[in-house]
Amino acid sequence: MMKKICLLVITCSWLSVNAQKQDYPIQPVPFTSVKLTDHFWTSRIETNRTVTIPASFARCDSTGRIKNFVMAAEHKGKFCTTYPFDDTDIYKTIEGASYSLAVHPDAKLSAYIDSLITIVGKAQEPDGYLYTARSIDPVHPQSWAGPERWINESKMSHELYNCGHMYEAAAAHFMATGKRNFLNIALKNADLLVRTFGPSKKHVAPGHEIVEMGLVRLYRITGKADYLNLAKFFIDQRGIKKYNDKSKNVYENGTYFQDNEPVIAQDEAEGHAVRAMYLYSGMTDVAALTGDTAYLKAIDRIWNNMVTKKMYVQGSIGAVGDGERFGENYELPNTSAYNETCAAIGSVFWNQRMFLLHGDSKYIDVMEKTLYNGLISGVGLDGKSFFYTNAMQVSDSFNHPDLERGRSGWFICSCCPTNVARLIPSIPGYVYAQNGSDVYVNLFISGTGNLKVNNKDLKITQQNNYPWDGGLAFIINPSSAMDLNLRIRIPGWAQNQAIPSTLYSYEQSSAQKIEIKVNGKAIDYQIKNGYAVISKKWKKNDKVELTLPMDVQRVVANTSLADDIGKVALQRGPVMYCAEWKDNDGKASNIIVPKNTVFTTAYEPALLNGVTVLKANVKSVNVDEGAQTVSTENKTMTAIPYYSWANRGKGEMTVWFPEQVKYVELITK
Amino acid sequence: MMKKICLLVITCSWLSVNAQKQDYPIQPVPFTSVKLTDHFWTSRIETNRTVTIPASFARCDSTGRIKNFVMAAEHKGKFCTTYPFDDTDIYKTIEGASYSLAVHPDAKLSAYIDSLITIVGKAQEPDGYLYTARSIDPVHPQSWAGPERWINESKMSHELYNCGHMYEAAAAHFMATGKRNFLNIALKNADLLVRTFGPSKKHVAPGHEIVEMGLVRLYRITGKADYLNLAKFFIDQRGIKKYNDKSKNVYENGTYFQDNEPVIAQDEAEGHAVRAMYLYSGMTDVAALTGDTAYLKAIDRIWNNMVTKKMYVQGSIGAVGDGERFGENYELPNTSAYNETCAAIGSVFWNQRMFLLHGDSKYIDVMEKTLYNGLISGVGLDGKSFFYTNAMQVSDSFNHPDLERGRSGWFICSCCPTNVARLIPSIPGYVYAQNGSDVYVNLFISGTGNLKVNNKDLKITQQNNYPWDGGLAFIINPSSAMDLNLRIRIPGWAQNQAIPSTLYSYEQSSAQKIEIKVNGKAIDYQIKNGYAVISKKWKKNDKVELTLPMDVQRVVANTSLADDIGKVALQRGPVMYCAEWKDNDGKASNIIVPKNTVFTTAYEPALLNGVTVLKANVKSVNVDEGAQTVSTENKTMTAIPYYSWANRGKGEMTVWFPEQVKYVELITK
Repeated sequence: MMKKICLLVITCSWLSVNAQKQDYPIQPVPFTSVKLTDHFWTSRIETNRTVTIPASFARCDSTGRIKNFVMAAEHKGKFCTTYPFDDTDIYKTIEGASYSLAVHPDAKLSAYIDSLITIVGKAQEPDGYLYTARSIDPVHPQSWAGPERWINESKMSHELYNCGHMYEAAAAHFMATGKRNFLNIALKNADLLVRTFGPSKKHVAPGHEIVEMGLVRLYRITGKADYLNLAKFFIDQRGIKKYNDKSKNVYENGTYFQDNEPVIAQDEAEGHAVRAMYLYSGMTDVAALTGDTAYLKAIDRIWNNMVTKKMYVQGSIGAVGDGERFGENYELPNTSAYNETCAAIGSVFWNQRMFLLHGDSKYIDVMEKTLYNGLISGVGLDGKSFFYTNAMQVSDSFNHPDLERGRSGWFICSCCPTNVARLIPSIPGYVYAQNGSDVYVNLFISGTGNLKVNNKDLKITQQNNYPWDGGLAFIINPSSAMDLNLRIRIPGWAQNQAIPSTLYSYEQSSAQKIEIKVNGKAIDYQIKNGYAVISKKWKKNDKVELTLPMDVQRVVANTSLADDIGKVALQRGPVMYCAEWKDNDGKASNIIVPKNTVFTTAYEPALLNGVTVLKANVKSVNVDEGAQTVSTENKTMTAIPYYSWANRGKGEMTVWFPEQVKYVELITK
Repeated sequence: MMKKICLLVITCSWLSVNAQKQDYPIQPVPFTSVKLTDHFWTSRIETNRTVTIPASFARCDSTGRIKNFVMAAEHKGKFCTTYPFDDTDIYKTIEGASYSLAVHPDAKLSAYIDSLITIVGKAQEPDGYLYTARSIDPVHPQSWAGPERWINESKMSHELYNCGHMYEAAAAHFMATGKRNFLNIALKNADLLVRTFGPSKKHVAPGHEIVEMGLVRLYRITGKADYLNLAKFFIDQRGIKKYNDKSKNVYENGTYFQDNEPVIAQDEAEGHAVRAMYLYSGMTDVAALTGDTAYLKAIDRIWNNMVTKKMYVQGSIGAVGDGERFGENYELPNTSAYNETCAAIGSVFWNQRMFLLHGDSKYIDVMEKTLYNGLISGVGLDGKSFFYTNAMQVSDSFNHPDLERGRSGWFICSCCPTNVARLIPSIPGYVYAQNGSDVYVNLFISGTGNLKVNNKDLKITQQNNYPWDGGLAFIINPSSAMDLNLRIRIPGWAQNQAIPSTLYSYEQSSAQKIEIKVNGKAIDYQIKNGYAVISKKWKKNDKVELTLPMDVQRVVANTSLADDIGKVALQRGPVMYCAEWKDNDGKASNIIVPKNTVFTTAYEPALLNGVTVLKANVKSVNVDEGAQTVSTENKTMTAIPYYSWANRGKGEMTVWFPEQVKYVELITK
């Protein structure tokens, strides 16, 4: 426990140094200052700690990812995995393990991480270069690496991508442990980049963004302006090369790489969705730290485009498999939805940053939707089975051949599992944020946040059973009475807005009123930027109660979404639902949910680690294969939270349900 | 009648001159020597004469196509249609009208054609160049034309395409009328090409092939080797430029233009299907006239690829709309089938040439399938409404947005109507062929062919009710007794082979035997290269009778055709069937045709210009929209010939029927 307190001091002192410079007006309360006690997230973080992280390390070992570093140190052997970015799986797992160590000390894990960092350090070349795909055998590097350093970076070498993930991991390891062993490796590497790239040096638009975010992290720790400048330099290189190819070939015309035009001219979420999220996150960081208004306008435009035209109802993005990319506006097909888990993670990064910049809850609404639905669907309840893509509909009768029907323990390109490993334990860092005496409560997770307001301690303790119950309580505990604007997010979904609200809407508004009580007494309150603002002098154990409506909402789509016309999706609180074969007589694609269907809800503690299910009497269409007849029957359907699907074997699933069937197609195979 | 005989002499004398040189071993009996009297084709040729050709000329006029020529003559004005190849609609209509004139003299039409030829001639520049898209205003030519002559030819200018269609039309006009007015314009233009292009002159791979076939026609008429050599030169330019782009962008990598590799290395029917057919036809011409074995091997390989992997069951080709092109092997989707009418016409050209080269009936089998199904589906029974694309399935519940559901009188890109206008009246030229005393009967159409065998006259008169009845009679009438090998095609479809036989097969063989009688007496016969060969000394009025089985055949597809798995198509004789909404309670996509369904047939003279329909008791799946129930009902289905669909308004149609339904998809819009 002593160790933890010490770490908090380090973290906070770093924050205070940078708070004087231009930065995000709002600062997150770091993960190290928030202790969760709820069932929903705590159980996931614990599974991540006990299963996901050990499994990731074991798989990094068994697949040869660690061996690559050992061989790189010796300049001997042959790169023994598939992709040059396989190095990052180790970095990302170290990052996740570091978050975990900060709240759950583990000497054995700590020692293991240190041994890995030693191996990583030995693979670093004397000038700081660290990239096993080349260092193992510089004469015969892995094919994507290119014959020389950086030559293939603007396309597929991922050299700077590896650097970026290393910086993210090293920064987290330093923040969590106070140790500089990994940080020093990262800084040595970053100094090489500073010597190599820049206005009068090499120019390159990084082929897979993340180095920009990573450099900003190192800048925050060191205060070294070179890192921030280089991040901006990299971002500004995009779209400089003229692409004359106006074809729809996204690789050739640069959109895949967000390299089709300068970033300040971009206005659409385009190309490879993970690359896009990391770029926009990096741009948001740089905009916050420099005040660059051109960046600001661009990311605002791009964000609006994404949430008004390119986001699925369960928060996923990146609809198109070919290029793992955003589709055209309103191109959100269900049966071929790609929705890479990493893209959802990137969306959390970006939306959190947009919130810190603008202080509007709409970013947190999108973030919450992603977190509770299209992101955690990417990891099985066992913590060691994953989705790379997140389907909207799996049907026995038709489906995109690339679409995953079942989870895998690992992938040849295994970015998603290790990204999950680092995201899940960082969740405490997304709960609270602060701008002086304005304290934001963004997520509703039982536990305690430890804040400093005007140098006085403030504890906020949440008591709830979110996301299943709408009754929320907040115990405000200042070390002594203090003036404070408590800003509690009133989710858009609780104000009769589906999220994102331009693409989706509720068929019927909730009749429930949102009520806030302070110390048992209902208060009037105003909502500003999506937050109920309660300004008063707070005393020990002041209690705020908030009740959010928990109606089962019928969500319908904007008519521009061709695949969703005449269909309905089901939502309760922040949770989107789906029907899975397992609860519905082996099928899901045959269910009709007519308008005005009445749903009952029930919390089932033994099901899927505890979920609230929805039930209703509906119709289903069934084929009798022997008699070759098709008929309609009444049945009771059961819907489960979307995130929990595919934990009981493989079968049909759907998020959208026909409300009214006009035709049927006869399928013969 | 005198005029006609005179024309025949001209034609035959030209044929005899060239017969001494290397050429196709088999020569077609020209359309001028064959008089049809049947109902099926004669009524179409008459409609073409009285409706299609006048409508085409009228539309050439009203859309500004003729005005373009007038403006080009004056170098004044602005190109007033859309595409630079709009000139060819006039050429093609003149070609069709010329065929028509040869068998049906019409002084008014003849005078009109002459006036058009005068207008065309005035638009020709002094050196022979003829291309209104540039000549109207050489400083501001139409955008596809390119700033200078020929600069954009390898892509989209269509300058040589216009030349090719002009040569085809001028040659037909000369053959049919004996007049040289159009031919002289063509020769002046061809001489410009000879001066412009060649080994030590300009090099270009024509952007849309047809000039090669056209030059061969001029070579046949004039004997001028330059034309044949230039045809071969153009063909050999393809794929010379190295395309390094291995992307799937068919425009960039050259496959769209059959320009991805040298023609002698090609082995797959690829790219824009009409371009492909015209190229392969030109190659076949040049191979026949030069004996080029590399060409021969290439076209054999490509033909095999096309008919074993890329042809629809009703004979159409060019499955993919994007690029109007061949798909990958076995890519033959039903709901998005493109199947340009012009591609079917090109396939007839090519298959006829392959037959003339190889003497195998398999080429005529494919040609017959195309003629009776996927080609004439392109023109409505009224002769003035057309399909540019030919659907395999039109459904209310789903369809490719580009797919046509109803016919149009004309198109912005109106290649298909004018191609129909020239193909239909040339049908008599496809019935017979000859190699000395080997006489081939390829198509079964009532009427009389006038042949010369060893300088003696031979009349062959067919009496049948094809394609509705299988009983065929052939009256052989030599001017005096003569030895002759009569080769009557025994269609593959009559020998229990679906066409093309590697892609499709019959579910059940016909039990009927094919019987041949000579003068009332059954004979033994051998089938060689697909022909029943009857060798004897023929006397006046010898009668051959042949009975082909006319079972309703259930056709199933190779399992590689994903869209056809578990489905059946219906065939009777050479005719493929479909079910259309009009005869089936407003729908077609809801019909199930179980195995062992028994069909009855009936000829209905008042229906669709006279068709044999198929009827059977089957099941249909129906949605009650009000009650929101789906149920299976028994019904009597009616199938009509595929070619006759979409003549009674717009609605559902399908060629393939589910035999056994495994699932249904619920469609909401």
